Amino acid sequence: MPAAHPPTQLAPSSPADPPHQELRVLPVTGLGEIREGDDLASQLGAALRPLEPRDGDVLCLSTKVVSKALGLRVDPAQREQAVADAGVRTVARRLHTRVVTSVVQIPSGPVMAAAGVDSSNAPDGPLLLPEDPDACARALREALVTSLGVDLGVLLTDTSSRVWRVGVGDIALGAAGVAALQDLRGGLDADGRPLTVTVRNLADELAAAADLVKGKSSGVPAALVRGVPGATALDIPARELSRTGAEDWFRRPSLESVWVALGLSPAQEPIARMSPEPPAERIARALAVAAVPRRDQQPSTASVRMLGEDGPTPHIVVEAVDASGAALIDAATTAERLRTALGAESLSTPLPEITVEISVPDPLQEPS
Amino acid sequence: MPAAHPPTQLAPSSPADPPHQELRVLPVTGLGEIREGDDLASQLGAALRPLEPRDGDVLCLSTKVVSKALGLRVDPAQREQAVADAGVRTVARRLHTRVVTSVVQIPSGPVMAAAGVDSSNAPDGPLLLPEDPDACARALREALVTSLGVDLGVLLTDTSSRVWRVGVGDIALGAAGVAALQDLRGGLDADGRPLTVTVRNLADELAAAADLVKGKSSGVPAALVRGVPGATALDIPARELSRTGAEDWFRRPSLESVWVALGLSPAQEPIARMSPEPPAERIARALAVAAVPRRDQQPSTASVRMLGEDGPTPHIVVEAVDASGAALIDAATTAERLRTALGAESLSTPLPEITVEISVPDPLQEPS
Repeated sequence: MPAAHPPTQLAPSSPADPPHQELRVLPVTGLGEIREGDDLASQLGAALRPLEPRDGDVLCLSTKVVSKALGLRVDPAQREQAVADAGVRTVARRLHTRVVTSVVQIPSGPVMAAAGVDSSNAPDGPLLLPEDPDACARALREALVTSLGVDLGVLLTDTSSRVWRVGVGDIALGAAGVAALQDLRGGLDADGRPLTVTVRNLADELAAAADLVKGKSSGVPAALVRGVPGATALDIPARELSRTGAEDWFRRPSLESVWVALGLSPAQEPIARMSPEPPAERIARALAVAAVPRRDQQPSTASVRMLGEDGPTPHIVVEAVDASGAALIDAATTAERLRTALGAESLSTPLPEITVEISVPDPLQEPS
Repeated sequence: MPAAHPPTQLAPSSPADPPHQELRVLPVTGLGEIREGDDLASQLGAALRPLEPRDGDVLCLSTKVVSKALGLRVDPAQREQAVADAGVRTVARRLHTRVVTSVVQIPSGPVMAAAGVDSSNAPDGPLLLPEDPDACARALREALVTSLGVDLGVLLTDTSSRVWRVGVGDIALGAAGVAALQDLRGGLDADGRPLTVTVRNLADELAAAADLVKGKSSGVPAALVRGVPGATALDIPARELSRTGAEDWFRRPSLESVWVALGLSPAQEPIARMSPEPPAERIARALAVAAVPRRDQQPSTASVRMLGEDGPTPHIVVEAVDASGAALIDAATTAERLRTALGAESLSTPLPEITVEISVPDPLQEPS
């Protein structure tokens, strides 16, 4: 996947970076429970002072703490609606036991399960993410730079899953005064060859390092990262870390991508399970998906029958309503939609090979 | 996305973990250039000794160094074939200027651009990744534990992009003696509520933290991470960090997922560009894709014409070869494939609205 950040916005890495520097991640303790209306910057300033912050340090703070200070609580009864309202684009909806989780793109760019609305470490109910985490990071940074008198970077972090990987880790949702992307394109490797790896997502690596200290249950929601050369050399907002639009190859999961191509609207899409599903369930879903007409089309007049359902080679017959041209076209359209919908289901685990054929009533035996 | 790791394989996080511990990432210097046949464990042991390794430290080493010691070099002329051979499944192939990059799943699980075959920091030519990085990590760890006399964890790391994110960062390809996944499900948050975030990918966060010290051009290919509670409490191989098979919702990119559903074989798939493509190019690709017959079918007898190509609302006519039932079915099948292929193209940026209609010759004017 390409690193498509425009080179002009990034400074090259400096070959004079001291390569032997030690990285330290210091827990920010004594912050206490943050409540709505708290002056977060002032409380953070007090908690940071014992760590003697220096120019180039990066403060990584769980975004949840900002949500608490801003009072972004959600009535638990309104949680589902809040998640729906907080997403700008649905990537997937998946069923786990009886709960549907929406994976959505949030306004600041990242794709997050349940729009990042989360109840852990939130005693007063689920919390929304701030709509503009970069702006929140900027406000915090300005206050901290003033009160502490050092050139500190600020990252707001949150937990995220990762496509193709098991388990979660922290990424950067908001950034201020941090070289969130580091251009290595100008550089040479240790052998003097041009580097093929070009742009490093420094902010997500800082967030991951901080998470190792903040943990999930330690009651330490912030950490100070010290000793990363160039970490505050530029000010690139975290908004630029999201790859969306035409450059996003993985706009929908494999299954949902096919439903979009078949012309289903989001409201018409079935909701697949998180866990692997038995073949019968997936065949039934393909039948349902294929039966949904495209936006501008009439419902199909053809009927669909499944034969040999319990045998090794099930077989689907699409029956045209009569032998007229319109009926044949309708049946052929339905059959092809069905083949495609079945083809989408076999993306994950093989379905039995299913033949879809078209059956046309004999015109001689038709009532005229 | 679910954290689907079976709970029985993981130990719960200990609530007694000291929450105020500082994390240190120490560069491993003085390793020198590694050559084929070098005793990597012995050289690493010597380089680590000045850092006074302790129980619970995790050594993070660029996998490239292991490839060098194993002599996994590729003749640059054979690079493309080596990439093809090194993948167990093609996720995508994309064209950038004139170079096609394959994104493939490698035998150890991760999805990597060019199968991780890389020329940077490789003076003697591109290097393959070892086929079993966990086994390499295990061998290194055994030697280091013996020579240093401490319970050290070992991670082999490599650079990777991330779906939906800009820029690259390090992940763990191999692990030995590391709690690569950390189960937080038994735990409560600081307020005593059950944690909704369940399994943390500790190995990838350790790899990211180490990358901040190792860098890409510093000539420091290894770092020692010290101070992560429980980091070596379990021994979970990195192989378990990959989500593949039925649990992988993003088996192919959106476009390629539709081509699979339309029945194209990998060899029949076009190769899209990395950069956004003009509508005319995408419409032409949809026409080409729709024209490919499914495995068990004959090429279409229908012909396809595009009308109003330069106007605001292009229009595609699928002409049946005659008015026979077979010809109508063929035309309808082609038309529906075309609508689906066009629907796949509009996943990223809107195409002009294109109508696909079927035209049937008048049977009265047919030569009989």
